[in-house]
Amino acid sequence: MQPVLSISRRLRRTPWTDKNTAHGVKGYTVYNHMLLPTVFDSVEADYHHLKNHVQVWDVAVERQVELNGPDAARLIQMLTPRDLTKMKDDQCYYIPVVDENGGMLNDPVAVKHDENRWWISIADSDLIYWVKGLAAGKGLNVTIHEPDVSPLAIQGPKADDLVARVFGDDVPDLRFFRHRKISFNGKEHTIARSGYSVQGGFEIYVDGSDQGEAIWDALFEAGEDLNVRAGCPNLIERIEGGLLSYGNDMTIENTPYEAGLGRFCKGPAAAGCIGAEALRREQENGPKRQIRGLSISGDSVPPCPDSWTITNGTSEIGQVTSAAWSPDFNTNVAIGMVTREHWDIGNVVTVKTPNGDREATICKLPFK
Amino acid sequence: MQPVLSISRRLRRTPWTDKNTAHGVKGYTVYNHMLLPTVFDSVEADYHHLKNHVQVWDVAVERQVELNGPDAARLIQMLTPRDLTKMKDDQCYYIPVVDENGGMLNDPVAVKHDENRWWISIADSDLIYWVKGLAAGKGLNVTIHEPDVSPLAIQGPKADDLVARVFGDDVPDLRFFRHRKISFNGKEHTIARSGYSVQGGFEIYVDGSDQGEAIWDALFEAGEDLNVRAGCPNLIERIEGGLLSYGNDMTIENTPYEAGLGRFCKGPAAAGCIGAEALRREQENGPKRQIRGLSISGDSVPPCPDSWTITNGTSEIGQVTSAAWSPDFNTNVAIGMVTREHWDIGNVVTVKTPNGDREATICKLPFK
Repeated sequence: MQPVLSISRRLRRTPWTDKNTAHGVKGYTVYNHMLLPTVFDSVEADYHHLKNHVQVWDVAVERQVELNGPDAARLIQMLTPRDLTKMKDDQCYYIPVVDENGGMLNDPVAVKHDENRWWISIADSDLIYWVKGLAAGKGLNVTIHEPDVSPLAIQGPKADDLVARVFGDDVPDLRFFRHRKISFNGKEHTIARSGYSVQGGFEIYVDGSDQGEAIWDALFEAGEDLNVRAGCPNLIERIEGGLLSYGNDMTIENTPYEAGLGRFCKGPAAAGCIGAEALRREQENGPKRQIRGLSISGDSVPPCPDSWTITNGTSEIGQVTSAAWSPDFNTNVAIGMVTREHWDIGNVVTVKTPNGDREATICKLPFK
Repeated sequence: MQPVLSISRRLRRTPWTDKNTAHGVKGYTVYNHMLLPTVFDSVEADYHHLKNHVQVWDVAVERQVELNGPDAARLIQMLTPRDLTKMKDDQCYYIPVVDENGGMLNDPVAVKHDENRWWISIADSDLIYWVKGLAAGKGLNVTIHEPDVSPLAIQGPKADDLVARVFGDDVPDLRFFRHRKISFNGKEHTIARSGYSVQGGFEIYVDGSDQGEAIWDALFEAGEDLNVRAGCPNLIERIEGGLLSYGNDMTIENTPYEAGLGRFCKGPAAAGCIGAEALRREQENGPKRQIRGLSISGDSVPPCPDSWTITNGTSEIGQVTSAAWSPDFNTNVAIGMVTREHWDIGNVVTVKTPNGDREATICKLPFK
C-alpha cells in the first residue's frame, strides 16, 4: 500500500518542507501533527549513504515542550522515574515519561538550560497536554509552552567535519548528550551531540522558523565535498542500532521495564515521579514481557504496518513491531515484545509475516 | 504536492482499513495517530454523492476517552466552559475543551452514559493526556482510558432509510445528538444521530474492533438500491456547513470566543472549568479576532496547506485556514480568522492565494 497523503494545515509544515521537496523527498509520515520525511533516494540507498557520509535531517517534528519557572525542576521530575538531580545545565537526558500506572506516554530527551528552564524534546504524542494537566492539577508555579524551536540533525561519520566548518572548530569538542550555544548570522541557537542514529552527529535546535533555510543552505554549501545529502531517520539503521520508536515499539500499554528501560527507573529522586508506586511494583514482580531484537530468516520482509504475531510454534508469545531487511547484517532485523518465558537470547521462534511463517532468533539490541 | 504516506504501526490501522482499500480509497490523512480516508472517487464526486445518497464513513479516528468513577462528572466539567449540569444520560454535547489560559485543546463530543461514565469523542489531539494529567494532579477518583470503540458514520439524506433496514425501524426516531443502544449479531453498540456533515445521519460507536467488518458488510448489502458508497468527511461539504476542524481552523492559540463558540461558555457550572477565569476576561474584553466564512472570488483555489494571509489591501487582518471550490455555491468557500475591525459580514478583503491575490467577501457560517 502506497497511499497518498492529503495535505492540510493540521499537518504542519516545517521550516524545511520546501527544502525537502527541492531535495526530492519521496515519502512522508506524520509525527506530532507535522510532516516528517521518510525516504529520499530509497530507504536502502539512504542507509548506505548515512553510514558513509553525512546527512542533514529535518526533524522539526521533535517539538520542544518548554518549562519555565520556580517549579520547573520539580515538575520534570514528576514526569520520569529517571533521577535528574545530578543533571548539569549543559546536559541532555533520555527520559521515559510515565503516567500514574507506569504506562509510557513518551520517550523524549530532556534538555536542561538551568534549574528553572527546561526543554523536553518529544517523540510522537502530545506530551504537552500531560505536562500542562499535571501542572494545572497540582497548582505549580511554572509556564509551559511550545516555542518556535525546530531541530535540524546532522548525522553520519562526517558530521564532525561539517559542523566544524559551519559553526567553528571547537564544536566537535562537545561530548555525547551535552549542549552549548552556537551563533549563526548573529543569532544564537543550541547545538547538542545527539540524534536518532548510531552513526554520530549533532542536533541544532534552530531558534526561529525564519532562521531555518539559511542554516540548511550553509550546511549544503560547506559540505559539498563531504557528499552531504538531505536525509531522515532511517528505518533499517535505527532498528540495527536498537533505537526505539514510541508508538511503534512501545505505547501507553507498556512500562519502561517492558521497553528495556529499567536502568532509567532508579535513584531516590524517582520517588517524585507520578508513576513511582506502579513502577516499584513492576520492578518487584518483574515485567511479563520485554523488548528484544529479532533476526528473521529468509529474504526481505515488507515493512511492518501493524504488528506481526510471534509464536513458539503453537501459541502467541509476542509481537514484532518494527522490521526491515539489513544489507550489512544480511538478515531481517526486527524489534518486538516477547513474553518472559521465551525472551532468552538465542531462543528460536516463529514470526507470522505477510510472506508466511519465518524462523527468527531472539537477540540483543543493538544488533552486533 | 501529492506525497506518499509511509505506513508504520505508529499510524494505527482501523477496523475498516482493509474495507477502505477494497472500496478504492485514494488518499489518507493521519488523525489521532490513525488513518483517516480523505477521498474515494474525487473530492467533488464524493461531495455530490454525499448530498444525494448515503455514505458509510470509517471515522474510527474519533477515539473515545472514557471516564469512569465517582469524580467523572466533576472532571468533565473541569474540561469545558459549557454547562453540563442539565445533560441527560442519552445526550451528546459538542464541547470546547480549554486549558488554564482558555486556549482550545480539542473540540470533542461528550457522550454521557450516566453521571459516573462518559465518553469524550475527540478531534485530533491527545486529549487523554490532558484529562489524565488533570485527574492525577487533582487526585480525582476516576479511571481514564481509551476503549476499543470505533465510530462508523452513516451520512447523507438516505441515512435514515439505511439504519432502519439494518438496525430497526425505530432507530430513525432518535433525535439530534441523542444516543441509544442497538444490537447486532447479539452484541450491543451505541448509536447517535450525529456526524461531521450537515446532510444528517448517524454514528455507530462500534464496540470491539472484531465487530467492525460485519456491520460494514451489512450496511452495504442492505443499501445497494440506496446507492450506498464508502465515503469520508468531505472538505467542501464541511466548509459549506461551517463545521470547524481542530488543528486547521483553531488551535491552542485560540479561545472558544475566537472560534465563534462563545455560546458554549455560559452557565454557572462553567465556573468549574479550568479556564473559567481566562474566559471571563476574554468575554469582558471581547475577542480580538474571530472565525468567519469567506467567499473567495475567481476560479477554483487549490487546497490550503498552511494558511493564506488576508489583507485589507495594505496590512494583514487575518488568515484563511480551510478553502475549497464549492460547485453548489459556485464560489470558493473558506473559513478563516479575521480581526475585529474587519470581521463584519459583507466586508470585502483580499486573500493571498498561491494563484495570486483574490477578492473575498466575509460571510456567515454555515454558507447559505
